[in-house]
Amino acid sequence: MKTLIKDGTVVSASDSFVADVWIDGDKIVGMTHPSARATMPVGPDVTQIDAKGQYVIPGGIDCHTHMSLPFGGTTASDDFDTGTVAAAHGGTTTIVDFAIQSKGSSMRAGLDAWHAKAEGKAAIDYGFHMIMTEANPQTLAEMADMVREGVTSFKMFMAYPGVFLVDDQQIFRAMLRAGELGALITMHAEIGLPIDVLVQRALSEGHTAPVYHALTRPEVAEATGTERAIALAEMAKVPVYMVHLSAQRALARVMEARDRGLPTYAETCPQYLFLTEDHLRGEPGNEWKGAGYVATPPLRPKHHHDHLWRGLQNYDLQVVATDHCPFCMKDQKELGRGDFSKIPNGMPGVETRLHLLWEGVTMGKISMNRFVEITSTAPAKIFGMYGKKGTLAIGADADVVVWDPKKSKRLDQANLHMNVDYSPYEGHTVPGSPSHVLSRGEVVVKDDVWVAKAKQGRGQFLRRGTFGL
Amino acid sequence: MKTLIKDGTVVSASDSFVADVWIDGDKIVGMTHPSARATMPVGPDVTQIDAKGQYVIPGGIDCHTHMSLPFGGTTASDDFDTGTVAAAHGGTTTIVDFAIQSKGSSMRAGLDAWHAKAEGKAAIDYGFHMIMTEANPQTLAEMADMVREGVTSFKMFMAYPGVFLVDDQQIFRAMLRAGELGALITMHAEIGLPIDVLVQRALSEGHTAPVYHALTRPEVAEATGTERAIALAEMAKVPVYMVHLSAQRALARVMEARDRGLPTYAETCPQYLFLTEDHLRGEPGNEWKGAGYVATPPLRPKHHHDHLWRGLQNYDLQVVATDHCPFCMKDQKELGRGDFSKIPNGMPGVETRLHLLWEGVTMGKISMNRFVEITSTAPAKIFGMYGKKGTLAIGADADVVVWDPKKSKRLDQANLHMNVDYSPYEGHTVPGSPSHVLSRGEVVVKDDVWVAKAKQGRGQFLRRGTFGL
Amino acid sequence: MKTLIKDGTVVSASDSFVADVWIDGDKIVGMTHPSARATMPVGPDVTQIDAKGQYVIPGGIDCHTHMSLPFGGTTASDDFDTGTVAAAHGGTTTIVDFAIQSKGSSMRAGLDAWHAKAEGKAAIDYGFHMIMTEANPQTLAEMADMVREGVTSFKMFMAYPGVFLVDDQQIFRAMLRAGELGALITMHAEIGLPIDVLVQRALSEGHTAPVYHALTRPEVAEATGTERAIALAEMAKVPVYMVHLSAQRALARVMEARDRGLPTYAETCPQYLFLTEDHLRGEPGNEWKGAGYVATPPLRPKHHHDHLWRGLQNYDLQVVATDHCPFCMKDQKELGRGDFSKIPNGMPGVETRLHLLWEGVTMGKISMNRFVEITSTAPAKIFGMYGKKGTLAIGADADVVVWDPKKSKRLDQANLHMNVDYSPYEGHTVPGSPSHVLSRGEVVVKDDVWVAKAKQGRGQFLRRGTFGL
Amino acid sequence: MKTLIKDGTVVSASDSFVADVWIDGDKIVGMTHPSARATMPVGPDVTQIDAKGQYVIPGGIDCHTHMSLPFGGTTASDDFDTGTVAAAHGGTTTIVDFAIQSKGSSMRAGLDAWHAKAEGKAAIDYGFHMIMTEANPQTLAEMADMVREGVTSFKMFMAYPGVFLVDDQQIFRAMLRAGELGALITMHAEIGLPIDVLVQRALSEGHTAPVYHALTRPEVAEATGTERAIALAEMAKVPVYMVHLSAQRALARVMEARDRGLPTYAETCPQYLFLTEDHLRGEPGNEWKGAGYVATPPLRPKHHHDHLWRGLQNYDLQVVATDHCPFCMKDQKELGRGDFSKIPNGMPGVETRLHLLWEGVTMGKISMNRFVEITSTAPAKIFGMYGKKGTLAIGADADVVVWDPKKSKRLDQANLHMNVDYSPYEGHTVPGSPSHVLSRGEVVVKDDVWVAKAKQGRGQFLRRGTFGL
Repeated sequence: MKTLIKDGTVVSASDSFVADVWIDGDKIVGMTHPSARATMPVGPDVTQIDAKGQYVIPGGIDCHTHMSLPFGGTTASDDFDTGTVAAAHGGTTTIVDFAIQSKGSSMRAGLDAWHAKAEGKAAIDYGFHMIMTEANPQTLAEMADMVREGVTSFKMFMAYPGVFLVDDQQIFRAMLRAGELGALITMHAEIGLPIDVLVQRALSEGHTAPVYHALTRPEVAEATGTERAIALAEMAKVPVYMVHLSAQRALARVMEARDRGLPTYAETCPQYLFLTEDHLRGEPGNEWKGAGYVATPPLRPKHHHDHLWRGLQNYDLQVVATDHCPFCMKDQKELGRGDFSKIPNGMPGVETRLHLLWEGVTMGKISMNRFVEITSTAPAKIFGMYGKKGTLAIGADADVVVWDPKKSKRLDQANLHMNVDYSPYEGHTVPGSPSHVLSRGEVVVKDDVWVAKAKQGRGQFLRRGTFGL
Repeated sequence: MKTLIKDGTVVSASDSFVADVWIDGDKIVGMTHPSARATMPVGPDVTQIDAKGQYVIPGGIDCHTHMSLPFGGTTASDDFDTGTVAAAHGGTTTIVDFAIQSKGSSMRAGLDAWHAKAEGKAAIDYGFHMIMTEANPQTLAEMADMVREGVTSFKMFMAYPGVFLVDDQQIFRAMLRAGELGALITMHAEIGLPIDVLVQRALSEGHTAPVYHALTRPEVAEATGTERAIALAEMAKVPVYMVHLSAQRALARVMEARDRGLPTYAETCPQYLFLTEDHLRGEPGNEWKGAGYVATPPLRPKHHHDHLWRGLQNYDLQVVATDHCPFCMKDQKELGRGDFSKIPNGMPGVETRLHLLWEGVTMGKISMNRFVEITSTAPAKIFGMYGKKGTLAIGADADVVVWDPKKSKRLDQANLHMNVDYSPYEGHTVPGSPSHVLSRGEVVVKDDVWVAKAKQGRGQFLRRGTFGL
Repeated sequence: MKTLIKDGTVVSASDSFVADVWIDGDKIVGMTHPSARATMPVGPDVTQIDAKGQYVIPGGIDCHTHMSLPFGGTTASDDFDTGTVAAAHGGTTTIVDFAIQSKGSSMRAGLDAWHAKAEGKAAIDYGFHMIMTEANPQTLAEMADMVREGVTSFKMFMAYPGVFLVDDQQIFRAMLRAGELGALITMHAEIGLPIDVLVQRALSEGHTAPVYHALTRPEVAEATGTERAIALAEMAKVPVYMVHLSAQRALARVMEARDRGLPTYAETCPQYLFLTEDHLRGEPGNEWKGAGYVATPPLRPKHHHDHLWRGLQNYDLQVVATDHCPFCMKDQKELGRGDFSKIPNGMPGVETRLHLLWEGVTMGKISMNRFVEITSTAPAKIFGMYGKKGTLAIGADADVVVWDPKKSKRLDQANLHMNVDYSPYEGHTVPGSPSHVLSRGEVVVKDDVWVAKAKQGRGQFLRRGTFGL
Repeated sequence: MKTLIKDGTVVSASDSFVADVWIDGDKIVGMTHPSARATMPVGPDVTQIDAKGQYVIPGGIDCHTHMSLPFGGTTASDDFDTGTVAAAHGGTTTIVDFAIQSKGSSMRAGLDAWHAKAEGKAAIDYGFHMIMTEANPQTLAEMADMVREGVTSFKMFMAYPGVFLVDDQQIFRAMLRAGELGALITMHAEIGLPIDVLVQRALSEGHTAPVYHALTRPEVAEATGTERAIALAEMAKVPVYMVHLSAQRALARVMEARDRGLPTYAETCPQYLFLTEDHLRGEPGNEWKGAGYVATPPLRPKHHHDHLWRGLQNYDLQVVATDHCPFCMKDQKELGRGDFSKIPNGMPGVETRLHLLWEGVTMGKISMNRFVEITSTAPAKIFGMYGKKGTLAIGADADVVVWDPKKSKRLDQANLHMNVDYSPYEGHTVPGSPSHVLSRGEVVVKDDVWVAKAKQGRGQFLRRGTFGL
């Protein structure tokens, strides 16, 4: 199977130029000047894609998804089938999902469970991080096994006491071990212990509406958690990566660490760049609508947007992932009617990430190169996938998106493929959309339609290498 | 009993002027121009002190002492008798010591125990803070009782897991309660959980010498603890006070909080201004000598001194207290021979604080006014003693020191009165010394000799008011 | 002439206590406990003032006034007569005005001219700073003469090209010379050269209204000027003092300098704490009204207020002076109708400073002690008047204000004594007002009425000492 | 002329992959997987270069050179012939030199003069910046002409009073005009006016040795100049670019500006990354040797190195250029014997830049990608050359370096090609060296030998586009 993408503008994290891109099987094998076609006839075995006036970019990598995550008595509504198909429609060709080491259980059991969820279901390639809910001698020992299995990053939580929360000593021990293994600790850096007191107080005062999710999780709780994660990593002499950074002051902590030369990294998510705390307030007469915007950390007031965009511009933030974790309004979000703390935490996002960030390009917030870097190249480098994924390099997997800037898309639930009954961006039309999405050399989505023969199970597990920066 | 202190230079936290100071009974009743004596004959019932060429200052307040503290299988070697007598010799006329609510026990029991230690023993006035080792419903409820008893400040620890350490939720609950009561939470802000891992690792690697006390408690552990305390206080909307701040980066966190308008306060101690990590290294061939310098937080490298002095100059640090907690080299410090983690933590200091800080005045580090403020006026205001203590105000307790800048003192163990078998400042001669120390109108120490009739038990318990700033 | 101020609460920069204050002639000679009066009969020669329930504070020092200043083709409307009488009504008993060394002329000539303006006119004591419009060999040499004459501070301008502006080399030479003399350089730190371009551009675009005074002098122009002054002082190894600091970012530069240990000082003015850029916009249909608010630096948007108050709380700002420089709306401000750049720059303020800052005390912005410090004690120390002025010390000049917190005052032009036809605070009622104002032991104003026999010429020239911090 | 570079590792600012690079004429026309050669026979007309185990990178761009610069009574010893040949030997295939608008003369005259210097001489491609020594109506008007001629960046000086220095108003006017034209103002940001006073004082005190060049140009003079340039650019709402940034505190100003979202850019030079103030001290008994290290800004103490490297890592510094401006020790530097201020300012560097920075790669200071970015891609983007120069893009000029990491080079004067009689790095051996240097498709240097037929005059003038970020 050979493919030629003709006349497009190839965009990498640093470069932009017009070229033909040649694919042979599942790999990129050449980039040539269009004029070269004059002397180099294209055989009939070659599928040709006309990319003139379009951008040819590496497929997106979403390094933060939660397919089929059990949470708060229900389960995230996208599984590895629906979720990865939706991802592909949005131009994302790789995800990294979170397996869970449950309290009292092993990492191995967690990994097995996640393999079982993904195998035979995923339509695009996928890797796993491992959530550590305990850093005890057994789990610390298992970290090496996981690295050998290609699960080279571990997530820990300062939030969710009783469920995910680990104390400073466990974090520190895991960091020391990760340092020995070349693995990376990633952190949910809100401090949940005082947050829980605020939640209880709010409920006891009769505050039950969705917006209290935000009002009981103030910015300072994330800022100080971020500082703490950085300090522990500094003590352990290891890198650290903040997931879903949402707030100005948390970013400021990352910036001061980086300015001191510490290997500190952070991702943000589209919801923190485009939505605000006001969405959590719902509408006059329907404050419950805010439930669709309950995710953690909470959406923040609007002034945070500028800081996060600037962080992306200035390399203080490295990645935009989604924290994709959808729950339907019906039956699922409804678990929290009358008690905001029972609303399942999470929003859909895996399909709309590139669309929203491309809007950022058209708004002048980031360059096209930076768009490619934060959606694909940087997560590939940080999470040990670079070379194979994350860029249109000769020899790399042909995960390619042909992005048509002349298309546009209305981000309504009806236009999207995620298995959830609402869209946080209902009514919002964004410029740009993929004309073709290729996964390992195969066009899987064309003009928003799945065209590959295979679907469920065509995705492969990615054994990732260790931290690459 | 009337006393006239003649012709001295009265120094307050803001002013300096030559005046006669009149004392009637235990109170200051007047300050007049020396020329006024011409028309106002001094009766024979008035004891006259000639203070010409000397400074008349308020008696020192040491708001951080640990008399008879049980620690690490032994007990601090000064009790309320020896410790307060030593304090008075050094110009300190009030101490605030730490009672302890022990795990599983009540604050009331802790307070009773400390009253029992002090009553009939203390030679100068004293108050109590309360150490909270648990913030549970009972202890949270007892906080109000303590405030009524004049114990208006509570200390919590992020260090010493298993002994004193409380988690963020306990700190936060105590802060919320303190806010309701007008009480103040003070914090030992080193994070002990990862420190313990470093200690275990050092010991397992065969590092047993005293200097490892410092090497396993890095600056970042205090800096991040300080940041955490500030963040929790910000969430709880209450003031917070750091005890014994030792390090540049911890100070930087206090500074950024104050610059943001948060009511953040901090004390440092003379050992962090005059001694360094090198003292912990002992001497060639006698690294054990460093045990005499084991206190927590540890002594820091020399460059921290400049930052702490600047903090004092610029009002970023408010108080210099001592953390007086002496252990004899013999029998006590020796518990840690072969295992630095077993060396009792603490150093003597209650007697030498004013001497050392006066040296700071002569070095140009701080003004005389600032000397008075950080040793007496500021702790009085912060800890609810102002009006009665902390300044030479009309109507205030006549706790007065006549400080002779022409005297000098060698800070050898043999010249000091603390019940401990070494001096951290052996061989160091400082300029200035008190000629007279008055406690509530009575000269108790004259030219370094105890002259008051009473001694043990003449000190009174101070019911302190709530946080005064 | 003896005076006894009875039962008041004496407030200094650090202390507050109830005491009787005794004055003999022009000096404060004693402070005693009210109970002492029982045994110490007050003779009939003693004027008694009942201060019960009132505060007894040092008379205000306004270290930034411009009486009879020639500016923009007119002259400030208060002279040393009307201006000092107004000051006294407001509780200010000392001013420091600015003499001018004019281009091509000598400092001596400038000083003689200002003495001529003040002698026989001033009702309260006064000193002079010297404005340097050139730092050439002659004026640099004259600096020593000025210091000998008690003019120990020199002001230079980065603004007003062609009139006052001096370049970096002149500033630097003057700083080096000031360092040798112990004198202080004070700085108007807006950079006028680019501002003039903005002004010309605005006018050329037809923008003539008063608010363009603010829009052409952006915050950054003051922030960078402040940074420049600090850098030059750092190079010259001398202290520096910013006059009339108005903006957050300028303050931030002062803070970072102080945090680095540099001897950097700054004053702000009430107008920057209470008025905003909106006042410059005038009213709908009457934008000209904004002319009454044209002063330099310009009034800033409201969010600056919080930063400046915090600067005062945290000792980052040391002084509040007024930059008193009134021009009547009629005939004077009108010079700028149709061209905002021709509006004489300046506002009245010498009479209302203490009233406005007391309102800050009642708003919880600053403590009473800090109120005293920033209005009196700090300028006395910085500008070499301490000991004689600036505090209620034994032996000091009896410049005393008895401040009645139960009074209030509406700051209308009709209620004030400054020689100007409007009040920037018209309609604004503030709590508190002086019941008695004493200048060198003599009650000059009682209940807002001048009661001293003498008036014009009773003020004395103050030979100031060199920089006192 | 066709060329195939085989089996090398192509390194761009973001990517690294093994590929064959195809060149046709002067352009890059393809990159293909080496395995593709199996099915795609290479014709005999193709010159093949074996790059196995080597890196294939874009030719260096040195955007800061001064060929034949008249300075201090002499002329920089490299002209466009010797200088560009040396550049090519070091892997640099493009330079941007500085034409000068002399006082009283026009930009046109300056540009003509520089064209005359370069035409028929330069061996590699070159562009020009224009130094503005006056911003008067004529020169401001000429800026548009220059932009049309492809001279799209203008340099101004805060240093060198009487020669190059312009005041804030001129800078500001030039910035406003540049903003209208899309041109870029670059700044020498040391403030020369106070520096001149320090120089005169040092000389008058008998300090004549080369090291006084550094001691009279303190870090703060550059830091404040940098802040000033940023503030003026902020007022003018334009980007600004600092040339030859040398010091930590200047970098801190750039960082704070970027953190605030201002378009602020800066270059540093290898001498500030590898040499220190100590080099200016010469050797014991031969302090004159320091003259060879006199450049402006001066070399700084060693601790600055870490900050500058971190600035490069973190994108706070964008470019490393050389400020190449050599003067021979003999006859030229000697002009300053006995008066350091007469030593011609400048050092050789155009040939050794890539070698030294590659050493930075091997030291772990920067990645290979970042090496490519700061030496080639970033200057191409900033200075309007991207697309044609600065990256190995399809369609770009085939300015290519094959860099052999197994080679090494001793940076002795005898091994280098610059026309100067010493090397600042004498005796220093660095890893890595180019095996082939191609300029527009032609191998010009092979194994350190010039191999192209043409030499003088083969370089072409580059009309640059406007500011590209």
